[in-house]
Amino acid sequence: MTDIPVAAVILAAGKGTRMKSDLHKVLHPVAGRPMLLHLVAAVDALAPARKVVVVGSGRDQLEAALAGHDAALAVQEPQLGTGHAVQQAEAALAGFSGDVLILYGDVPLVSAATMRRMLDRLHAGDAPAAVVLGFRPADPAAYGRIIADGDGRIVRMVEYKDATADERAVTLCNSGLMAVAADDLFRLLARVGNANAAGEYYLPDIVMLAAADGRASAVIETGAGEVAGVNSRAELAAVEAAWQQQRRAEAMADGVTLIAPETVYFSYDTEIARDVTIEPNVVFGPDVRIASGARIHAFSHVEGASVGEGAEIGPYARLRPGAEIGRKAKVGNFVEVKKARLGEGAKANHLSYIGDADVGAGANIGAGTITCNYDGFLKYRTEIGAGAFIGSNSALVAPVSIGAGAIVGAGSVVTADVEADALAVARGRQQQQGGWAARFRARMAERKAALKGK
Amino acid sequence: MTDIPVAAVILAAGKGTRMKSDLHKVLHPVAGRPMLLHLVAAVDALAPARKVVVVGSGRDQLEAALAGHDAALAVQEPQLGTGHAVQQAEAALAGFSGDVLILYGDVPLVSAATMRRMLDRLHAGDAPAAVVLGFRPADPAAYGRIIADGDGRIVRMVEYKDATADERAVTLCNSGLMAVAADDLFRLLARVGNANAAGEYYLPDIVMLAAADGRASAVIETGAGEVAGVNSRAELAAVEAAWQQQRRAEAMADGVTLIAPETVYFSYDTEIARDVTIEPNVVFGPDVRIASGARIHAFSHVEGASVGEGAEIGPYARLRPGAEIGRKAKVGNFVEVKKARLGEGAKANHLSYIGDADVGAGANIGAGTITCNYDGFLKYRTEIGAGAFIGSNSALVAPVSIGAGAIVGAGSVVTADVEADALAVARGRQQQQGGWAARFRARMAERKAALKGK
Amino acid sequence: MTDIPVAAVILAAGKGTRMKSDLHKVLHPVAGRPMLLHLVAAVDALAPARKVVVVGSGRDQLEAALAGHDAALAVQEPQLGTGHAVQQAEAALAGFSGDVLILYGDVPLVSAATMRRMLDRLHAGDAPAAVVLGFRPADPAAYGRIIADGDGRIVRMVEYKDATADERAVTLCNSGLMAVAADDLFRLLARVGNANAAGEYYLPDIVMLAAADGRASAVIETGAGEVAGVNSRAELAAVEAAWQQQRRAEAMADGVTLIAPETVYFSYDTEIARDVTIEPNVVFGPDVRIASGARIHAFSHVEGASVGEGAEIGPYARLRPGAEIGRKAKVGNFVEVKKARLGEGAKANHLSYIGDADVGAGANIGAGTITCNYDGFLKYRTEIGAGAFIGSNSALVAPVSIGAGAIVGAGSVVTADVEADALAVARGRQQQQGGWAARFRARMAERKAALKGK
Repeated sequence: MTDIPVAAVILAAGKGTRMKSDLHKVLHPVAGRPMLLHLVAAVDALAPARKVVVVGSGRDQLEAALAGHDAALAVQEPQLGTGHAVQQAEAALAGFSGDVLILYGDVPLVSAATMRRMLDRLHAGDAPAAVVLGFRPADPAAYGRIIADGDGRIVRMVEYKDATADERAVTLCNSGLMAVAADDLFRLLARVGNANAAGEYYLPDIVMLAAADGRASAVIETGAGEVAGVNSRAELAAVEAAWQQQRRAEAMADGVTLIAPETVYFSYDTEIARDVTIEPNVVFGPDVRIASGARIHAFSHVEGASVGEGAEIGPYARLRPGAEIGRKAKVGNFVEVKKARLGEGAKANHLSYIGDADVGAGANIGAGTITCNYDGFLKYRTEIGAGAFIGSNSALVAPVSIGAGAIVGAGSVVTADVEADALAVARGRQQQQGGWAARFRARMAERKAALKGK
Repeated sequence: MTDIPVAAVILAAGKGTRMKSDLHKVLHPVAGRPMLLHLVAAVDALAPARKVVVVGSGRDQLEAALAGHDAALAVQEPQLGTGHAVQQAEAALAGFSGDVLILYGDVPLVSAATMRRMLDRLHAGDAPAAVVLGFRPADPAAYGRIIADGDGRIVRMVEYKDATADERAVTLCNSGLMAVAADDLFRLLARVGNANAAGEYYLPDIVMLAAADGRASAVIETGAGEVAGVNSRAELAAVEAAWQQQRRAEAMADGVTLIAPETVYFSYDTEIARDVTIEPNVVFGPDVRIASGARIHAFSHVEGASVGEGAEIGPYARLRPGAEIGRKAKVGNFVEVKKARLGEGAKANHLSYIGDADVGAGANIGAGTITCNYDGFLKYRTEIGAGAFIGSNSALVAPVSIGAGAIVGAGSVVTADVEADALAVARGRQQQQGGWAARFRARMAERKAALKGK
Repeated sequence: MTDIPVAAVILAAGKGTRMKSDLHKVLHPVAGRPMLLHLVAAVDALAPARKVVVVGSGRDQLEAALAGHDAALAVQEPQLGTGHAVQQAEAALAGFSGDVLILYGDVPLVSAATMRRMLDRLHAGDAPAAVVLGFRPADPAAYGRIIADGDGRIVRMVEYKDATADERAVTLCNSGLMAVAADDLFRLLARVGNANAAGEYYLPDIVMLAAADGRASAVIETGAGEVAGVNSRAELAAVEAAWQQQRRAEAMADGVTLIAPETVYFSYDTEIARDVTIEPNVVFGPDVRIASGARIHAFSHVEGASVGEGAEIGPYARLRPGAEIGRKAKVGNFVEVKKARLGEGAKANHLSYIGDADVGAGANIGAGTITCNYDGFLKYRTEIGAGAFIGSNSALVAPVSIGAGAIVGAGSVVTADVEADALAVARGRQQQQGGWAARFRARMAERKAALKGK
């Protein structure tokens, strides 16, 4: 590993027409995070000195997405090829002396380790002018080919359409990713011409220009999955599927049981301890941590939540941001928890909404309980003490506090605080009218008959 | 494209024993529509002069399914082969002069475009006696083979069991689908014999009979997927999977994001605009339209509904027939909407049943709200005005009207209309008994101990 | 089939390190049943005289799991190879004279039929010394090879690492499963040495020892899927997937429609009649029976339940243990049923919890109804008579009885029994304050503005 400063140039000026979207192509998410930010995260692992994103249209969208990520934007307008795109980053790299990684906003899965390998190769052995990342796709199709010698020194890079039959038989393809020293990069780019059918300035041309100066470039290889590009929603789905498949394998290797791995969808940052079981059909949003021994039952949706050791979630549980589920606590079916803490062993097993609440250890929230946390303007909190028992179908109108050990009778609408160990009941008196139902049915039967008669 | 009138004969007399079903085989649905009606829809795109369905057992079921589809039924009893089956349609085609398409009720995915190609070929160039639809399956197995010359003129059609080794090496197979002029068809069928092991009259024999008269027939090809047949529930599932896969690809090509395409199930008539995102595990029933920018969250089930621009549905939302969700409205988790309109920006985010209702723009329906629309005999409507706020866990007993801007207190049972801008509360008074819960726990602990002692 | 007594020795002493689990490897479930108990069930179908499980660490877990399964435990400590493991079972088989099946706790899918074939082969024709179960994996990789003659007589068994190139080219591999007469087994095992790199006693060595005595052994083959082993959670998931795929195919062959078979998860004991339709995304737990004509809608979770003819379940229904759903009854979305019987034609269609209840024929349970069955200590029952109508959002506080034909008004909290044909209402009176909402909004708008001003 070198000590040389690193800059990353991420090309993101492509129009993305085939996406048919108002959202900029590189902002379409994979595993819940925009593609561009996958790259930014990988680059950040290299502690880069500078990051430049080259943008065409949709600049406002990129600016917003990059807020807080310490990246400069460079505008490419008009768009005259990849070489021209990289040239637009020159101003943003003024005064920078070090290595430049050239990445693509729509090739989102490249790992920091691969980037590191590219940079290390740039300073290894024969110190190549540039390092190109190659791959061998199952179907090389129309990719540009890299003709290299046995030591990975590039003899020739050729667009598919210009390739001879022999060259087309080569399976090593050009991903477009490159590492080059900044000085070399812009000096070579200045010499790239556009005397081709499209009238564009091609980045790979710098390899042959360097070769003409007597400086070889090198290729290193990676798997085709890592450099999969996204030009359509189908390709986006394919990249998502590849990401998910790898993440599932990692989870299982780490001691997580996935009964039906193909039905579990992780987020880019999901953290799951060993001996967690995840049943079929579970979806994770961002910012989730699951502790050891917990079980996530089928059809659960978990986002922005922490789940304690041995807790049981679901089936059909929805944990939303701010849900903190304690050790051995239970959140059951058709229960939503948001900005709420459930203490150790607390239970909310059925048909409840627990929002903006603090539920003490061992408390039992009956079926159909609703914390009424919103008055249309502000949100208020509900406090439920340890060991409290909330009867089914109760409404707790916040701000309200139920004392430790208190009991709320079923069907109550609680608007005032309840003392510890007290019983609170807030419901109407039951009244009965004998025979009313029978008379009602007779009346309705007549009415239905009359309606039919019309 | 010819101006010649078209008739379709759909063979549906097979017993479907391997389906092990009381439902007629051709009525088993694919993408929510009976197989037979997939064919009827494709045929209708050709504006046919006549449609005849040849039926054996299960006639009543077919009659009911075909109501309103302007198709004649012809009965084949006993069932003496495909040639015999088509002959049963002769009476229903009396007086018809034009081209006949012969289709199979259990080969449901044939497109109108392919049917059109068959008809056009019948009148192209050498004007063949019949046009046979061929295909090349991955495994030709025991399909009948079509031996044709380089121009698609049929030299011989041969059942697999009668084929020579050379003929079996041919990969072009007979789908059974055919286009023939009506006059030719019935004249040739009259000459088909049943001198074979099964004692059946085979439709393909007309090709060789025409050839004996000096008139060649032609084959045109299609993909194996389009002529996949259904003889078992496993094959039904395979045809469903093929249909879904194609529909998902179309959706993505049209600018719809499917995060996990393999988990989204469309109906035959689902309409989805561009820049809609559909999360994993979403099921569409018939008659759904989703406008641009809407997001369908995970685990949603949408049927008979329209969803406006930028609306958010789910997770775990169930939209049932008659749900009309307005622009930027939200239907959240564990919420069912049926025959109800939600105005622009209205929200029903948690655990609610909204049935037979009209919810004004910007209204907020609290968690656990139920519209009580049914008295066991009739259904009644609930009107909720624009900007109204329905407190959580309320029951709105229809017919009832909540005025614009009104507030209903949490936990209320509303039986009378509420004026605009008024507050309505309908709940019991809260009462408290200090220490009761502690005494209750002591009593129950004693009782449990006593039960154990027994 | 022989009359000779059978004993099974199941090896389960492996450490299972790669599972990264506190749960013993052979107790990880497949289709909801621990792997070990899949084997025990298959062995039990042979009416064995003895069952011995050889265990290393985790003995307590295995003892608990085997309770009631009439199996002896033998401890292998330290673990010196498969031959040594089987030797530990010798004491538990003292006095047993018959055939011994040697099985592996982490090879869970071997069928009773295959075991039977192994035993029968032991007494057929040439009466081999041992019968080895072989298989031909897609990738033979590093499996031990079985070199056999054309009649299945074993010439040589060789570990991959000791195999010649010719032997490695053999595709028949050793599953490790074996049938041997008890007397032969232990006599031969006593002669197995540990003069190998690992210093272990290998079970397959008995084959070559018998051969040296002039007694050949035989191999019989089975499919690779049946002898798939589980050493990691990924392999566990693969075995689960194989099991599910086979079960789905069986269900379809039996006349069950699975619209998306790949999304339906069965339990080891699920029973489903013909002409049942199962929509996408349905999960079955143990102990479920579904009668003919029922439909299980999408996103349902069914466990410990029986579903009657023509009943409709879901979408989003959760049936828990003790749910008995009658003929043509309906359990709809976001409804949980536990230890409760729904009579013929009864309906609980929306957002309800029905626990410890008996619901009569034709009764209608309104949306949002909760049976309040628990007081924190004991559970109580709710009785609802035939034809009763429970208004929406009601709470029925058990123990309570609603008479036949009675009506409960919407939003009631019912604490006392209701007579047959009576109307019961238990809710607060509605009060209204005109203009309150408008004043509230004005006040809150001021307050929000003030908060912003700070």
